[in-house]
Amino acid sequence: MNERLLKAARREPTDTTPVWLMRQAGRYLPEYRAIRAQLPFLELCKRPDLAAEVTVQPVRRLGVDAAIIFSDILIPVEAMGMELELGDKGPHFPHPLRTPADVDGLRVPDPVERTGFVAEVVRGTRKLLEDSVPVIGFCGAPFTLAAYMVEGGGSKSYIQIKRLLFEQPEVAHRLFEKLTRTLIPYLQMQVEAGARIVQIFDSWGGELSPRDFVEFSLPYLTRMVKALQEKGVPVILFGTAMSTHLPLLKRTGADVIGLDWRIEMDEGRRILGPDVAVQGNLDPTALFLPREQLVERVQDIVRRAGKVGHIFNLGHGILPPTDPDAAKTLVDAVHAAGRTLRATG
Amino acid sequence: MNERLLKAARREPTDTTPVWLMRQAGRYLPEYRAIRAQLPFLELCKRPDLAAEVTVQPVRRLGVDAAIIFSDILIPVEAMGMELELGDKGPHFPHPLRTPADVDGLRVPDPVERTGFVAEVVRGTRKLLEDSVPVIGFCGAPFTLAAYMVEGGGSKSYIQIKRLLFEQPEVAHRLFEKLTRTLIPYLQMQVEAGARIVQIFDSWGGELSPRDFVEFSLPYLTRMVKALQEKGVPVILFGTAMSTHLPLLKRTGADVIGLDWRIEMDEGRRILGPDVAVQGNLDPTALFLPREQLVERVQDIVRRAGKVGHIFNLGHGILPPTDPDAAKTLVDAVHAAGRTLRATG
Repeated sequence: MNERLLKAARREPTDTTPVWLMRQAGRYLPEYRAIRAQLPFLELCKRPDLAAEVTVQPVRRLGVDAAIIFSDILIPVEAMGMELELGDKGPHFPHPLRTPADVDGLRVPDPVERTGFVAEVVRGTRKLLEDSVPVIGFCGAPFTLAAYMVEGGGSKSYIQIKRLLFEQPEVAHRLFEKLTRTLIPYLQMQVEAGARIVQIFDSWGGELSPRDFVEFSLPYLTRMVKALQEKGVPVILFGTAMSTHLPLLKRTGADVIGLDWRIEMDEGRRILGPDVAVQGNLDPTALFLPREQLVERVQDIVRRAGKVGHIFNLGHGILPPTDPDAAKTLVDAVHAAGRTLRATG
Repeated sequence: MNERLLKAARREPTDTTPVWLMRQAGRYLPEYRAIRAQLPFLELCKRPDLAAEVTVQPVRRLGVDAAIIFSDILIPVEAMGMELELGDKGPHFPHPLRTPADVDGLRVPDPVERTGFVAEVVRGTRKLLEDSVPVIGFCGAPFTLAAYMVEGGGSKSYIQIKRLLFEQPEVAHRLFEKLTRTLIPYLQMQVEAGARIVQIFDSWGGELSPRDFVEFSLPYLTRMVKALQEKGVPVILFGTAMSTHLPLLKRTGADVIGLDWRIEMDEGRRILGPDVAVQGNLDPTALFLPREQLVERVQDIVRRAGKVGHIFNLGHGILPPTDPDAAKTLVDAVHAAGRTLRATG
């Protein structure tokens, strides 16, 4: 198996910089759209054969160093008992959490019973890949999931979730507790099925001030990281607009911290220190640049990150209008720049 | 006149910490809603008598140290020749910029001829206030306005504007140039009408990576700051999710840099250094906290900011569901905490 990504996550030497792309199994690929045309998003998540096929498509086409399973961070939330719609306008909970009783009515699901299809995706992917590259498991962070559950979908100002934090903090903590108790076995199930590394997406954690992040997010993330590390896999923790929270993210003990594009890679590494790996951080819209400028930006990030403990990625998910050839250019440029870096010093 | 705000902007000593709130003239106030019920948002902007009345409402009710004119950052864009709709779903340009010819077809408007009503709002406000507190003029940053113009409205990933930057940078620069040549006289007009300080809102500048911010935003902001300072007024520069760009924002030469709530106030001041004032930075949702916790957060920010060169504000606009009494509690708490700070150390 190509273990570049796992080695980089553990800050061990590698022959070049490993790379994968958030949302690499997705709409920018015609072969994905062909399958997706047959069934809705949520159904695709629950069809392990097709989901595994979609998962390996970017490995075949782009030559990335890992496969992240095709799924959605809200799958375990549905398993907790919330009706979920995944439409073209983004995820939507028709009955968002409104009262303490709503929170108390949520179940902590048995992962295999309720979300066993996710483990099947991991196993199906491994089979298709013949273990050529590692499979990445993932889930959302408790705060990010709670925000969806309380807001009912995407939000601009996050008023509902923050009102919950500020007006009924004990209810908020009960919700985070239930989520944490759901997410740990959910990730452990993915590891047992063969995921070699996991990523926690705290997409909206950057909406919290540092003190609120410390109170409402950090304890739960820390528990999750520890529980997965005890399972023998490294943990990547990713958020957006969280550059000012980097020292806090590091306190979770995560093996790898994801950076978005708002911070220069070397500045991020300077803040985090040498004892943690980093992932990132090209602006996804940079894939619209002319090829030579795209390559130059890739080289710049590879150089700023250095030889050890860097997993190349975008600073956010790859965008649907992206040209797959640009993604291929990126992957090749990372591998070439990583080799040059290691050859020259 | 109460000159606390102007003194703080120049880092001169004050008796207490000055405070105003972004969007303080707005929907959370019943007296605003009463006037707004009579006419649409955009028409209200163009009725200087009513806009001035709305502008002074928060000064009367809350005792803030400045009045920011009731207007919208997209007013000068409409004056450049773009049809504008300001509906309940946020601003919308039915005919967004799509081609280089669209950009070249924009006019650089004469500010008095096309937007003289904004100067009338400044004058009307001064009269109503009897110059008791200073009037703040404002405009949007070229990048933020361009993003609206190209996307057609709010955006999640800013694909269109970034494609313009990356695929046709020379067209993007022509657009920024036209915007800058529109905005400088637009702000100067407000100063001539009596605005004593101006704020530039770069609401979306945080979407740019540091290198893109340096290429596409910094030069224009710097020109604007300089032109307004030559007119004798201090300049506040505000953006969200821009904490990693603080050293760049400082390079504009702005007198005051606005911070959002994602960074601790003392950390922001440490990064910026003592030779620039700061504004901010309470999370707007903190106004939903129980009163004593709200006051504690206000005191914490006042203390972390220190005695000199701090204008208290929210880290973003006040939210429509906010209780006006909470806003009053905030203002009183800032003034009390600022006095305590100066009395004790």
